[in-house]
Amino acid sequence: MSERAIQDYYPDQLSFCYGCGRLNKHGYQIKSYWQGNEMVCHFTPEPYHIAIPGYVYGGLIASLIDCHSTGSAAAAFARSKNLDLEVESAPRFVTASLQVDYLRPTPLGPTLELRSQIAELKERKVIVHTTLFADGEICARGKVVAVLIPENFVQGP
Amino acid sequence: MSERAIQDYYPDQLSFCYGCGRLNKHGYQIKSYWQGNEMVCHFTPEPYHIAIPGYVYGGLIASLIDCHSTGSAAAAFARSKNLDLEVESAPRFVTASLQVDYLRPTPLGPTLELRSQIAELKERKVIVHTTLFADGEICARGKVVAVLIPENFVQGP
Repeated sequence: MSERAIQDYYPDQLSFCYGCGRLNKHGYQIKSYWQGNEMVCHFTPEPYHIAIPGYVYGGLIASLIDCHSTGSAAAAFARSKNLDLEVESAPRFVTASLQVDYLRPTPLGPTLELRSQIAELKERKVIVHTTLFADGEICARGKVVAVLIPENFVQGP
Repeated sequence: MSERAIQDYYPDQLSFCYGCGRLNKHGYQIKSYWQGNEMVCHFTPEPYHIAIPGYVYGGLIASLIDCHSTGSAAAAFARSKNLDLEVESAPRFVTASLQVDYLRPTPLGPTLELRSQIAELKERKVIVHTTLFADGEICARGKVVAVLIPENFVQGP
C-alpha cells in the first residue's frame, strides 16, 4: 500500500470533514490508500455505531462509502494528472450522488474493509464503485458520483 | 403534527440505532412525526458535523434521510394496517437501498427539515422519497427502499 493516505494530502482548510478530515477531532478520520489499482480503507466501528444490537449502523456505512469514494476520486484524479502530492495539495472532491445497496447485515466487531475502483474519470467528475467487506464477506456496495470541488466553495455559505 | 414520534413506539430492543434509537445515548435520536400525509423530522447538526467549514457533512445527511425514511416506512405501514401503537409496538424497517442526490451544499446553522412521502407500500417493502431543506431551500433528495425487519434479525449475528 502507498505510505500516506490521500487524506493526508488534503489542504488544511479542506481537512475538517467529519468523515475524513484529519483535523476534525470529533470525526472518523478515515484513511484511504492505493493498493494496486484499488483504493482501500479500514475502519473499526465503535460499540455504539449500531442499527440493531450486533449490526453496524447503515448511516455509518453510507458515510464510510461516501468519504472513501471521494478520497478515491481525488487519488485517481491526482494519478491521472501525474500530480506530485509531496509538492502540491491533493485535489478535493465532493459528492453529487451516493447510492448504497445493503446486501446483508454488517456484523459489529470486525474491522471493515472498503475497496474502491474507478469506473469513470472525466475532467471534473469521477464515478467510484466501492464494496464494503466484514470478515471477508461483501455486506454493502456503493456508487458515488464525485465532482471536483468548485474553487469558491471554501469561502463558506 | 402527531404527538409522539414513530421512534417512541419502537420496541426497546430495537431502539438502539445510532440514528434514531431513543436508547442510544451516543446517537442522533431523531424524531419523525406525521404532518398530514407527510412524515417530518427536524434536526440541528453540531458544529463539527461539517464537510467543508460552513457546510453540513454529507454522511450526516445520508444518515438522517436513512433513519427518517425507515421511520416513515414504519409509520405508513402501521397506518395502513390500522395498528394501535398505544397498544402494540411499531413495526421496524431496515434499509435495503439508499440513494441521495446532493443538490446544493447544505449550510451549517439552520435546523434541517426532512419531509418524506410514501411512494409505494407493499406487504413487506416501502419506498420512501425524502427531501431535505435548510432555510426553506431544497438541499438534498433521497430515495429509500425499506423492508420489514426479519423476525430473526434481533438475535444478533
